[in-house]
Amino acid sequence: MLEIDTIRTLAADMVQKANSGHAGMPMGCAPMAFVLFTNFIKQNPKNPRWVDRDRFVLSNGHGCALQYIIFHLLGYKITMDDLKNFRQVDSITPGHPEAKHGIEGIELTTGPLGQGISSSVGIALAEAHMAATFNREGFKIIDNYTYCICGDGCLQEGISSEASSLAGHLKLGKLIVLYDDNSITIDGDTALGFTEDVLKRYEAYGWHVSKIDDGDHDLEAIKNKIEEARSIKDKPSIIKIKTTIGFGSMHQGEEKVHGSPLGDDDIKELKKKFGLDPEKKFHIPNSVYEFFHKISARGDQSEANWNKLFENYKLKYPELAAELIRRIEGRLPDNFESFFPTFTPDDPAQATRKYSETVLNNIADHLPELIGGSADLTGSNLTKWKTAKEFQADSTGLGSYDGRCIRFGVREHGMAAICNGIASYGGLIPFAATFFNFISYALGAVRLSALSRFRVLYIMTHDSIGLGEDGPTHQPVETLAGLRALPNILNFRPADGNEVSGSYLEALKHQHKPSVLILSRQGVPNLKGTDLAKVRLGAYIIVDSLAGKKLDLIIIGTGSEVSVAVEAGKLLSEKHKLLVRVVSMPCWELFEEQSQEYKESIFSKDVPVLSVDILKNDPSVEALSALGWERYAHGSVSMKTFGSSGPYKKLFTKFGFDADQVAKKALKLIEFFKDKKPDWKVCRFEE
Amino acid sequence: MLEIDTIRTLAADMVQKANSGHAGMPMGCAPMAFVLFTNFIKQNPKNPRWVDRDRFVLSNGHGCALQYIIFHLLGYKITMDDLKNFRQVDSITPGHPEAKHGIEGIELTTGPLGQGISSSVGIALAEAHMAATFNREGFKIIDNYTYCICGDGCLQEGISSEASSLAGHLKLGKLIVLYDDNSITIDGDTALGFTEDVLKRYEAYGWHVSKIDDGDHDLEAIKNKIEEARSIKDKPSIIKIKTTIGFGSMHQGEEKVHGSPLGDDDIKELKKKFGLDPEKKFHIPNSVYEFFHKISARGDQSEANWNKLFENYKLKYPELAAELIRRIEGRLPDNFESFFPTFTPDDPAQATRKYSETVLNNIADHLPELIGGSADLTGSNLTKWKTAKEFQADSTGLGSYDGRCIRFGVREHGMAAICNGIASYGGLIPFAATFFNFISYALGAVRLSALSRFRVLYIMTHDSIGLGEDGPTHQPVETLAGLRALPNILNFRPADGNEVSGSYLEALKHQHKPSVLILSRQGVPNLKGTDLAKVRLGAYIIVDSLAGKKLDLIIIGTGSEVSVAVEAGKLLSEKHKLLVRVVSMPCWELFEEQSQEYKESIFSKDVPVLSVDILKNDPSVEALSALGWERYAHGSVSMKTFGSSGPYKKLFTKFGFDADQVAKKALKLIEFFKDKKPDWKVCRFEE
Ligand SMILES: [Ca+2]
Ligand SMILES: [Ca+2]
Repeated sequence: MLEIDTIRTLAADMVQKANSGHAGMPMGCAPMAFVLFTNFIKQNPKNPRWVDRDRFVLSNGHGCALQYIIFHLLGYKITMDDLKNFRQVDSITPGHPEAKHGIEGIELTTGPLGQGISSSVGIALAEAHMAATFNREGFKIIDNYTYCICGDGCLQEGISSEASSLAGHLKLGKLIVLYDDNSITIDGDTALGFTEDVLKRYEAYGWHVSKIDDGDHDLEAIKNKIEEARSIKDKPSIIKIKTTIGFGSMHQGEEKVHGSPLGDDDIKELKKKFGLDPEKKFHIPNSVYEFFHKISARGDQSEANWNKLFENYKLKYPELAAELIRRIEGRLPDNFESFFPTFTPDDPAQATRKYSETVLNNIADHLPELIGGSADLTGSNLTKWKTAKEFQADSTGLGSYDGRCIRFGVREHGMAAICNGIASYGGLIPFAATFFNFISYALGAVRLSALSRFRVLYIMTHDSIGLGEDGPTHQPVETLAGLRALPNILNFRPADGNEVSGSYLEALKHQHKPSVLILSRQGVPNLKGTDLAKVRLGAYIIVDSLAGKKLDLIIIGTGSEVSVAVEAGKLLSEKHKLLVRVVSMPCWELFEEQSQEYKESIFSKDVPVLSVDILKNDPSVEALSALGWERYAHGSVSMKTFGSSGPYKKLFTKFGFDADQVAKKALKLIEFFKDKKPDWKVCRFEE
Repeated sequence: MLEIDTIRTLAADMVQKANSGHAGMPMGCAPMAFVLFTNFIKQNPKNPRWVDRDRFVLSNGHGCALQYIIFHLLGYKITMDDLKNFRQVDSITPGHPEAKHGIEGIELTTGPLGQGISSSVGIALAEAHMAATFNREGFKIIDNYTYCICGDGCLQEGISSEASSLAGHLKLGKLIVLYDDNSITIDGDTALGFTEDVLKRYEAYGWHVSKIDDGDHDLEAIKNKIEEARSIKDKPSIIKIKTTIGFGSMHQGEEKVHGSPLGDDDIKELKKKFGLDPEKKFHIPNSVYEFFHKISARGDQSEANWNKLFENYKLKYPELAAELIRRIEGRLPDNFESFFPTFTPDDPAQATRKYSETVLNNIADHLPELIGGSADLTGSNLTKWKTAKEFQADSTGLGSYDGRCIRFGVREHGMAAICNGIASYGGLIPFAATFFNFISYALGAVRLSALSRFRVLYIMTHDSIGLGEDGPTHQPVETLAGLRALPNILNFRPADGNEVSGSYLEALKHQHKPSVLILSRQGVPNLKGTDLAKVRLGAYIIVDSLAGKKLDLIIIGTGSEVSVAVEAGKLLSEKHKLLVRVVSMPCWELFEEQSQEYKESIFSKDVPVLSVDILKNDPSVEALSALGWERYAHGSVSMKTFGSSGPYKKLFTKFGFDADQVAKKALKLIEFFKDKKPDWKVCRFEE
């Protein structure tokens, strides 16, 4: 078929010109993508952000030439020059699809295998929730399918197992996965390492499964099976489609067509085989354009119909309609900030995870876009607010799709990917919760939250050795260092109730960044001087003895160590008559954004700085000052090793985190700088 | 049964005394563990390291009281006091089982869910390989089973899906998993989020499956099903055993017995119910001790028989026997160092992944304990040496169990856990390979390599924006920061061929640490001054202009940026007549271990230091000097953002990593310090 063969040769041309990329997948998947986009996908290329569009996700993102070509043919904003610029610096057509990178209509950043299909579960979940929330009798405002193409690689990844198992449990009937079964992975034949019965596995998850034996030619079968999948309402569907990777190439069906250009000779032969002019590159016959433009005109009409429906909805349900618009735009409710609790030193000491629960209880009813849950640690993460309803299929009797408490199960990586999908859908602010240590299970997806600029909240409790008896297997020491190095993410480690409130507020206000809320298991007092409103500064002074005089020392801490720093400061003031400032630094990233003047007002010239931070930022067991903190501090109390199993107070003492030991170290630091000036770290060489 | 009820009440006592922990699982799993340890497990408590012991792994490690109790009863070195010290600081009985933490016989560190069962696959794989390598007609020197108990949580984790799929493919018939199906997770009933058909899924993986309806009482069925599983030689087995969590407690079958003490009243009632004295705590009737001691005497005899067999083996196959002993001790071959290649600047520029391949080709035949592979990137990671045989089941015709090239499939997390299992088995040095960015998929297991002190090599290629067109989804920027903060791991980023050789040598020599080899996709020249033998110092001078005179600048780099630093240094020397030193730092952790004198010989007083490192160590997009590098450097050329898709040379220019731009920044740095002295960073406050 000319349309399909045009896609195939165009993909070959793109990869050849870039001299890099993957032609095999687009050539093999062109038929299924063609059937999907020309028969089923509800879309309007002129308005790729139309709320009720069907979502399409290319999970095997290395085959993105396919999506770029189809988008071009359909009239999305992607030109022939963009296709020719495939994989070039600053093009809108990078080597893997990137959300918010110039092509409206790319829903998700994919490429890291397994992410796309897993986030597709999140998209389908979001659709189910939004439909349950906003649809009314006669007004199916939200009513779209989520289609995902994936390959063998995606289905080998554990993340897709997690998300797929949950999708089956949740009966997400509008999720349809087309599995490109080409028997080839990068290493060669799937016989080398992937011989499981995939469809049987998906049946075990509760999915509807079907297969197509000749996905290279049998367009009718593809159409019928997709039609069938659409008709199954209470199960996600997977359709296994047997294809030939690099279809048409001299090396079709071999792994060598997976990841490199075919070569000019092969491409010429290919074009001949398809009855196309072998000398023409990047050639699209007019009839092909015309065919696709007809399809996209249909999409234009679809949206027009929907717009009419929505106008009537607005008339009948003006508040709901306004709310939907607000949420799709990602705006927070107007009076939103007023619901955040504040605390005073008279309030009882509680774990910061507990303050987090208080914040959720206060804000959740006023923030209906907040949806999420825990990876089977709901009672420990304290993320289920009082009024939260379960997100479950009606038929289970456990909840319904308008619920906002998601039971992710013990599936951290899948959970984070699902949250990316929810964020991608729009109108929702997803959150994911587990122990802080186990964000390391989910980093592949957390990274994509940051890269994709999705507002996802990671609520991570049990943040240090302060979790006590569970021991080093559960005590993060290195985790924060990696997160602090990740671009476009905010890491909050609040010291007490006020800072928890302020951290949530900042996290929610940053519409284009994920945030990590790093919370203690153990109780911490509400400190004098902490301030909800100052969290936005990243760091600020909470204790300053005799302002105006020359300080002897600045102690800086984060999270549960701030109260230790305050105690140590008190001890140094009272017993040693030293002038000490204590700084709390709930968010490094926000502090870095402040003016140089502000920074210099926190860290005074010629005053040594001691950091107290239980999370290790250290490059080695032997080194005693904490890497990372050298940015601000001259000395450091920090973890040097893994933690240990025991009651947390004993662990704090064992590892040096009590007022006495901190004060002792502080005295040594002051002594060290007696005859020399400490360098003023905030005043540093920067270009 | 008295023995089982004693285990149950003892577990309840331990958790009660610790006032923390998990009694529900031991109380529910006591029957299956009892049957397993008293009927099947081949072990000798007097010598827990006996080579041919059966391996036991408690994957739901939070139930470790169960294992501690059974070990105590069997006469392993774990006293009643140790049981009473459960979860206390510096005890040998921490909250989750920790390998190499005082109890010989704990094979693996578990607790993070899914790790134990996944590493069990590695243990079974190692057994198959060692048996194929060392057994001879009439001499089944290596012939043990791997038994694993796991719960719902472990089976929800993607890591276990990955490893289980591979175990089925590899037909690891001596792996037997007992699945504690108690319908409870922390969140409550598994109906909330885990409703898939687990056994059907495992059948799809190619496992033998069976189930037991009453795992609380039907010891005979447990015995029979284990017997059956042992008889299936070409498939791993999973036995789903229905149990009651917290069996005997007033709250049996409820999630509340999962993670907290039962309370004194409940424990008293429990003991009454079992016909035990409700007033006695930590009580073990003599008959129970006697029963278990008989079991362990049997183990003593087993090892005696094996020792006799091994004596005869030694006589008949003295070289093989010596080799087995060497490998079990973890000693490298005597002449081992002589096989590492060295390079000169006349050798052609190649990618460091390519030098890595050369190293493997040179050493693999001389290091038969090296075994491993790639997560479906064999041809890109270049980890299959010329003579490597495939590790596959004979019946597939693709290889055999004595092969050393493992096809892990697209299963990074599973791969790392499997390598932990292989390392745990002994006699082998496992390696895992993928793109550096995707170590973030595997961090949960990498962390356990470090905590467990396992010598696992992570061969991570495509280490930066230098991978080019695949773009930011594949370009690590933050990854190294987190790894550098992890205790007990070595991170090598070699600059050229000599440093690749040296990095492998150091990685292999460190028997109790994992190492990460961070390698480029793109070519780098072999530099004058690099030295295989100096890699052990972590950092060393490779260019020093006019030694003896006062330097103007030190430039320090790692990996592919060292050659950029050398070029920039040359430009500064020749064009600007500056005295420049260039330092290569292949391994921070090893440098930190060096003497202060050595460190001060690298970084001279009053000389500014500029770092050039393409991996981001930065806390925010806005900050311009690289976090982490502030430990050594006064200025930095580093990544501030995610990377981009494009040819790598253009990306290097785009992001500032060429000699011109580095030199320009160097000049500004020197200018900045014209009137002031840079602080001497290696000479810092340390306690
Ligand atoms: Ca494939
Ligand atoms: Ca369970």
